[in-house]
Amino acid sequence: MVIVMNIDATVEEIAAVNRRLEEMDFKNQVIHGVKKIVIGAVGDALNNNALKELAQMPGVEKIVPIMKPFKLVSREAQAESSVVKVGDVRIGGQELVVVAGPCAVENREQIMAAALAAKNAGANMIRGGAFKPRTSPYSFQGLEKEGLQMLKEASRAVNLPTVTEVIDEHSLNLSLNYVDMLQIGARNMQNFRLLKAVGQTDKPVLLKRGMSATIEEWLMAAEYIMSEGNQQVILCERGIRTFETYTRNTLDLSAIPVVKRLSHLPVIVDPSHGTGDRQLVAPMSLAAIAAGADGLILEMHPQPSKAVSDGAQSLTPEGFNNLMRQLTILAPAVQRSIPKIQGGLEYV
Amino acid sequence: MVIVMNIDATVEEIAAVNRRLEEMDFKNQVIHGVKKIVIGAVGDALNNNALKELAQMPGVEKIVPIMKPFKLVSREAQAESSVVKVGDVRIGGQELVVVAGPCAVENREQIMAAALAAKNAGANMIRGGAFKPRTSPYSFQGLEKEGLQMLKEASRAVNLPTVTEVIDEHSLNLSLNYVDMLQIGARNMQNFRLLKAVGQTDKPVLLKRGMSATIEEWLMAAEYIMSEGNQQVILCERGIRTFETYTRNTLDLSAIPVVKRLSHLPVIVDPSHGTGDRQLVAPMSLAAIAAGADGLILEMHPQPSKAVSDGAQSLTPEGFNNLMRQLTILAPAVQRSIPKIQGGLEYV
Amino acid sequence: MVIVMNIDATVEEIAAVNRRLEEMDFKNQVIHGVKKIVIGAVGDALNNNALKELAQMPGVEKIVPIMKPFKLVSREAQAESSVVKVGDVRIGGQELVVVAGPCAVENREQIMAAALAAKNAGANMIRGGAFKPRTSPYSFQGLEKEGLQMLKEASRAVNLPTVTEVIDEHSLNLSLNYVDMLQIGARNMQNFRLLKAVGQTDKPVLLKRGMSATIEEWLMAAEYIMSEGNQQVILCERGIRTFETYTRNTLDLSAIPVVKRLSHLPVIVDPSHGTGDRQLVAPMSLAAIAAGADGLILEMHPQPSKAVSDGAQSLTPEGFNNLMRQLTILAPAVQRSIPKIQGGLEYV
Amino acid sequence: MVIVMNIDATVEEIAAVNRRLEEMDFKNQVIHGVKKIVIGAVGDALNNNALKELAQMPGVEKIVPIMKPFKLVSREAQAESSVVKVGDVRIGGQELVVVAGPCAVENREQIMAAALAAKNAGANMIRGGAFKPRTSPYSFQGLEKEGLQMLKEASRAVNLPTVTEVIDEHSLNLSLNYVDMLQIGARNMQNFRLLKAVGQTDKPVLLKRGMSATIEEWLMAAEYIMSEGNQQVILCERGIRTFETYTRNTLDLSAIPVVKRLSHLPVIVDPSHGTGDRQLVAPMSLAAIAAGADGLILEMHPQPSKAVSDGAQSLTPEGFNNLMRQLTILAPAVQRSIPKIQGGLEYV
Repeated sequence: MVIVMNIDATVEEIAAVNRRLEEMDFKNQVIHGVKKIVIGAVGDALNNNALKELAQMPGVEKIVPIMKPFKLVSREAQAESSVVKVGDVRIGGQELVVVAGPCAVENREQIMAAALAAKNAGANMIRGGAFKPRTSPYSFQGLEKEGLQMLKEASRAVNLPTVTEVIDEHSLNLSLNYVDMLQIGARNMQNFRLLKAVGQTDKPVLLKRGMSATIEEWLMAAEYIMSEGNQQVILCERGIRTFETYTRNTLDLSAIPVVKRLSHLPVIVDPSHGTGDRQLVAPMSLAAIAAGADGLILEMHPQPSKAVSDGAQSLTPEGFNNLMRQLTILAPAVQRSIPKIQGGLEYV
Repeated sequence: MVIVMNIDATVEEIAAVNRRLEEMDFKNQVIHGVKKIVIGAVGDALNNNALKELAQMPGVEKIVPIMKPFKLVSREAQAESSVVKVGDVRIGGQELVVVAGPCAVENREQIMAAALAAKNAGANMIRGGAFKPRTSPYSFQGLEKEGLQMLKEASRAVNLPTVTEVIDEHSLNLSLNYVDMLQIGARNMQNFRLLKAVGQTDKPVLLKRGMSATIEEWLMAAEYIMSEGNQQVILCERGIRTFETYTRNTLDLSAIPVVKRLSHLPVIVDPSHGTGDRQLVAPMSLAAIAAGADGLILEMHPQPSKAVSDGAQSLTPEGFNNLMRQLTILAPAVQRSIPKIQGGLEYV
Repeated sequence: MVIVMNIDATVEEIAAVNRRLEEMDFKNQVIHGVKKIVIGAVGDALNNNALKELAQMPGVEKIVPIMKPFKLVSREAQAESSVVKVGDVRIGGQELVVVAGPCAVENREQIMAAALAAKNAGANMIRGGAFKPRTSPYSFQGLEKEGLQMLKEASRAVNLPTVTEVIDEHSLNLSLNYVDMLQIGARNMQNFRLLKAVGQTDKPVLLKRGMSATIEEWLMAAEYIMSEGNQQVILCERGIRTFETYTRNTLDLSAIPVVKRLSHLPVIVDPSHGTGDRQLVAPMSLAAIAAGADGLILEMHPQPSKAVSDGAQSLTPEGFNNLMRQLTILAPAVQRSIPKIQGGLEYV
Repeated sequence: MVIVMNIDATVEEIAAVNRRLEEMDFKNQVIHGVKKIVIGAVGDALNNNALKELAQMPGVEKIVPIMKPFKLVSREAQAESSVVKVGDVRIGGQELVVVAGPCAVENREQIMAAALAAKNAGANMIRGGAFKPRTSPYSFQGLEKEGLQMLKEASRAVNLPTVTEVIDEHSLNLSLNYVDMLQIGARNMQNFRLLKAVGQTDKPVLLKRGMSATIEEWLMAAEYIMSEGNQQVILCERGIRTFETYTRNTLDLSAIPVVKRLSHLPVIVDPSHGTGDRQLVAPMSLAAIAAGADGLILEMHPQPSKAVSDGAQSLTPEGFNNLMRQLTILAPAVQRSIPKIQGGLEYV
């Protein structure tokens, strides 16, 4: 870190800061400039309290941290990109992952039809919510355990692994028996208890970026999970909150190459929540892959107009099928491949 | 709500929308304009699914909701302003509430010294965190049960009620035995499980605005608590995330008169988190009261430079004392009063 | 528009609003709901003053406008997509436009080397600033007329049309003699005098989105130009200001399909300013084309480390060449083509 | 500045950076840490190009600037607060300035009535727009020269100095003959030509903060004016653009104490544009003064419902009068005084 002293800091104040730095085992060096005196200090950057204490010493103008606050998630900790396995699916490798399914599991017919449509179009994972965090207390909140059972049944029928959102310890404990990957939603990205809890499981975790989370906070949330021992984290960009109102959120695709540079973790994109508008899902899916994403998570519903939640941003099976065809053409242009389109499965 | 049809919607499409509205028990009327056809429909605005289904019918351009989505929190539900009692303190009345204390309870001496300083300067409630949601997993996370016990001891010593943040069901259950008011922090404003859980208690709840929450989402979070039966909700503005980086957050004081117009609930302000900078706390405290806030929640630490968290934004006891004197002068200018300065209590 | 009356509006107030609407030649209809009374009114939505007057009548809660405020730029005014010609280049057609060149024209050698590198790699237009709006008064402000002359010389040498930014009437008048397309920068997007002035020329105009402009404001700025008679407007997304600080701006690629739906005008993307980081330019260029952009405008400098401005975001000629090869592979995946790579030209 | 080297920077790369720093007359020192090597360098921080060149040298991870980029506006350049005189009015002293008047001069009667109401209620300056930057080309654009003449006439009648917005060189040249203070609007805060032009006049300049301008950019805009020789700059906070939509902008009152710390210039607040809502003007005016503002600029119209622009945010003369009475009570609580209420003047 660098300690910038006030223009009128006294010799004693500078000496006091130096002494305190030495007590803290920092290696330090004073640089006398024309207008400012700056103290460079090298040591354990994760020692936040040291930073804060120093910032308040007399004569100190500000502290400029140099090291990044995260360690396990960083490329400096691991140079090669991580590949996370979910069943037979490898996330972060050359082949893209495409997760598809409804926002919420509504009933057996719906999730089965969605799973089949996903499988036939070439998706390699299915999604479906059983615990729904909703802005209004008067909205549908999910089928809970029953929903998880239906999701597992659909998973078996089409032989694809699943992901579902967990929102507290209860939903987490239940989900462990039914799904292959756990999702932490945007609203819970800084629910640190929940991060620790999923960090103590052996399931891969899909960590969505919070609505107003900086990239650094997002990586720190991943650090929470990894610091508990679970290294299987996949990041998911899903749009940030800005002043623009034509789209529900602003999908920050530049976060993909930024995160790829800072971290070894895989990154996928959720253009359904990221835009909130079905017509924007296909162009933003193509853009996400072109920008270097390792995959997509998409809302697809057999009958979007009947969906109990997020219908406006859900693709129809036909729309999803068309998108998969476009992705199949685009992926090789960025040296990636798309899972093969299966086709032919029917719902009996 | 108003349904705006596409410029080229067919007669059949318009008829279909009308039929569906009637099935949903909406009262509706078609308005034929020069360029647009608009259907006005009146009914249960909280029926979100109806809105979403209609939005996807052929020929529909967009749906414009007219009614606000919240009910129990709204001034239309209750015209007179609510006053919430915490022990002998009345929040929302003519006398302002001033909550002071450290970010985190660190040890017996610290919280006792803080409580005394708070009491002596005229605060009418004390605060202290026992469960700290921290951005980094490597930061201090709170003394938990032990911290709650110390807080209660301090509360008894100075005879002031307390507030502490709860972050999950475990911390909530523990806190019920030790504190007088529960706080939902900004990061948990949309932790809907937690909102429901505090809504099922009989304790007053201080609900902080989320870092990127709109006023509407904030009021909807209050609605979650109230819809479970707990009417004792106090709103707390604590700064929103914007592009400006000189301050940690941007304190949105205009939210105070806006919320006062929309809702009957009391609103207080947290200028410590709202600015992240001790030197800005006094001017923004005065501004908050001038704008109509019902009180303040302030970080004050006996020795801010030794604080394990948020020291940079904590007032010293002397700084807090000065601020209370300024508030005593300012409050009558907006027809409010400040609790009397006690003085004289000593820590034995 | 829809006029929502207060819950307690009197019969007289409702009658007064109706009378005023009739005087304004609006066609209106009252809808009596259970809780609210709503008046639907159809007429000239561009009459802003009417809106404002009505909003202030007694008993009125709010006005909800239904019509979009722009006309000439809208797809409702012109269903087919516009193609703007700049010399032999057609912007908005099947072939993509790629504009490349330095942020600022610095000297004859530099712009000539840049133009050659651009041509050789397949760019079909060149850029170069002669009037630089800079945040600091102590930064380089551009070579002005001399810079324009050098740009024109380079344009002739490689036979490619040019674009340069104009910042006031003086720079506009000078530029008319030297360049093929005028650029309005982000900071001038609401410099309405300048918009009108370029609207009175016969040159195509590249209109950058303001740093905090909504899509609607951006289209209204285009409307300013078009309402003066100049229909040759190309929109350029260049990143918006958000809370994220890892990137200079947040490139809003979802604006591309949104604008394509609302307007018939071509849209190109500037990933150099949009990210501020050379390493992000290639992935975001590919993403922009995948999202449906009609082209790119890129900063490329023969020696970025010597650039007087924006060096950190400028591609090297080699980096630009690599990007063009990647684009050549990607473009057909979205049914577009890239100008042919020329190669072989040398600077004598 | 501090140069942070990559974790794997070579000895040669470090040596090269050191050499280049010496060539640039920077004084530098290398700090070898456990994981990072950092070079502290002290010299002319305003040399932006040096920064950019260094940032691109091999082995450099990032540059952290230490010095602030502004000089003339900074408190380090001038410790005592500036007082700017406009006629007999002193802005930045103990007495607050209150500027009132309509958004636009509409006709002789309107501006005369507004000026009288302003004077009678105790305003010490009047405002009125003659050149209006409007989002839509179809909105009223101002009376131009005729408006300036009416404003001057009103100014003489009530003996109060005036301010008007200038938007280009034409409006600036005209205004010089008619008004006492020039205003640069939010949309032109980075119209650097215009900043330089007003910097070459001898009139005080009211510089509004841009809608998405950081405090640093705002101060740099003031630096533009001052670097041309005009030291009479008054800053005006008028709300920034955020995700919140209940208010037109988010009035950033914390900017007041921040700017007061960084700069010696006076700061006033515009709660009319800052909120866009007449009902919020009074509470936010009181809050602004409580936060330390040197004054207010308020929209007041004899008949807001007939205003051609911004009626919804304009106070009535009665509302303005009430606000002045509240301010008279509040100002002494923050050691300020309000101009005396005049009363009694009538419009003949």
